[in-house]
Amino acid sequence: MADENMEGAQADALARRVAETLLAQEGTGPAWALQLEEVREGYARVSMVVRSDMLNGHRIAHGAMIFALADSAFAYACNSRNMATVAQHASIAFLNAGQAGERLTAEAEELSLVGRTGVYRMVVRGEDGRTVAEMQGLSRSLGRPVVEPGGN
Amino acid sequence: MADENMEGAQADALARRVAETLLAQEGTGPAWALQLEEVREGYARVSMVVRSDMLNGHRIAHGAMIFALADSAFAYACNSRNMATVAQHASIAFLNAGQAGERLTAEAEELSLVGRTGVYRMVVRGEDGRTVAEMQGLSRSLGRPVVEPGGN
Amino acid sequence: MADENMEGAQADALARRVAETLLAQEGTGPAWALQLEEVREGYARVSMVVRSDMLNGHRIAHGAMIFALADSAFAYACNSRNMATVAQHASIAFLNAGQAGERLTAEAEELSLVGRTGVYRMVVRGEDGRTVAEMQGLSRSLGRPVVEPGGN
Amino acid sequence: MADENMEGAQADALARRVAETLLAQEGTGPAWALQLEEVREGYARVSMVVRSDMLNGHRIAHGAMIFALADSAFAYACNSRNMATVAQHASIAFLNAGQAGERLTAEAEELSLVGRTGVYRMVVRGEDGRTVAEMQGLSRSLGRPVVEPGGN
Repeated sequence: MADENMEGAQADALARRVAETLLAQEGTGPAWALQLEEVREGYARVSMVVRSDMLNGHRIAHGAMIFALADSAFAYACNSRNMATVAQHASIAFLNAGQAGERLTAEAEELSLVGRTGVYRMVVRGEDGRTVAEMQGLSRSLGRPVVEPGGN
Repeated sequence: MADENMEGAQADALARRVAETLLAQEGTGPAWALQLEEVREGYARVSMVVRSDMLNGHRIAHGAMIFALADSAFAYACNSRNMATVAQHASIAFLNAGQAGERLTAEAEELSLVGRTGVYRMVVRGEDGRTVAEMQGLSRSLGRPVVEPGGN
Repeated sequence: MADENMEGAQADALARRVAETLLAQEGTGPAWALQLEEVREGYARVSMVVRSDMLNGHRIAHGAMIFALADSAFAYACNSRNMATVAQHASIAFLNAGQAGERLTAEAEELSLVGRTGVYRMVVRGEDGRTVAEMQGLSRSLGRPVVEPGGN
Repeated sequence: MADENMEGAQADALARRVAETLLAQEGTGPAWALQLEEVREGYARVSMVVRSDMLNGHRIAHGAMIFALADSAFAYACNSRNMATVAQHASIAFLNAGQAGERLTAEAEELSLVGRTGVYRMVVRGEDGRTVAEMQGLSRSLGRPVVEPGGN
């Protein structure tokens, strides 16, 4: 039991390190002021404030920026086992508007993992907890690590 | 025949005016340096250069920015009849990487229009013509115009 | 607490009655020998044996029959509040083959409900518990009941 | 030019032979009385009459049978180059009802082919030409032929 907990803690620490590495290497996360809220094995939660350069012509959050937040959570979750993994397909339903100035939060959860293919659910929520979008993501692992496993 | 051509030309001019209005009102298009290449009734083609703030951790175009380009073409095409229309659902397949510095082009084409619901195909291509992504979009019209129909 | 439980039990009984009504009225469920395993508010689990008339050219379960099972669970779950509801969109990932003679089980779970629009996750599993498919479904309520609410 | 035409004709004849072979081997096509209308390289058109065992609880064509028709066209189109190919993902929008007794037709068209991955558009239409459904399909080739290339 103690060993299992220790393994779980190590797996979660690795997941966190991978996400921090990806965030540091990418251009998008810093450009969007993305915040890593929580990362564990097969799971990630990130948030972002809807800025004026993220609004569409109706002055609400552009669907692509809602997708961007969900897709980022997806990336950190599907790379969390330190296997470099890319999105193959994503399917997103837009349910409520995201408001200007609002902090949106996206949660990514692993639903299934079969060989190199993973299926993830992402949900984007507003500050009041309402659902803004639901995404289904299909990932494919490339068979190489993201960070050096022994490193820290 | 001449009348049909004139109607078609007017419809296309309106489509262009709607797209220019949306682009001027939105925060995203200017932020991404989006370029309107062509807009007609039920059709739009836009392009964008992949900047360093659009790269993912692998230093290629972030999937969300590929989605953003396709989604923008989708928006201009589904609003082209001057009926305010929003994305309900989008389904995207990522097929090739987009390179840093490369100009990507997204083309949106109306496949079906049934009542207030439309289905669109978006294809994103690289400079060499290779397919970067294919998107299926589902739109819903809100029943009000985007711009004043008589205006110019 | 007791009242909540009673309300929950009544809601679940209604969900069951709606599913049984739909199954009795439809041509497909009986044709596929569909079995209602469990139906509750916002949830349904159904199963089906893969017969020879459900096989594709590779002699494994045809993807459309895997979809059919998931889609049936979706229908019973999204109609479970006794509001007639139809599928607008479905997005399915095929992950493992379904074998001839195998009993497949599909579970539908409500993820989000916003106005008339619902989002559901369906997962299809084989007898050994492996994931065969994952589906995301988007539903739209029609604003009328399926069965007479007071009936039994 | 004559050579190109001959090659095209041979490719189309092979596509037809592959589809006929798949249809003869599968349980589903004959069970649904599927009719091969036209098969060419990267293209297939099939039709089916909506029987009473294909109706849902509202007595219109079950969404899964509309999917089944589209998915069959998808299969014949993505196997048309005589490379055994399976569906990885499908995304379907339901736009109009299919009526009892109506012959529905599904057309599959190849949009993109990148390595082993293909993207296809399927559209299902009713007898009056209205669009019943639009599907986006993602295929993956398995790297082996369906029929013996030299055979007939």
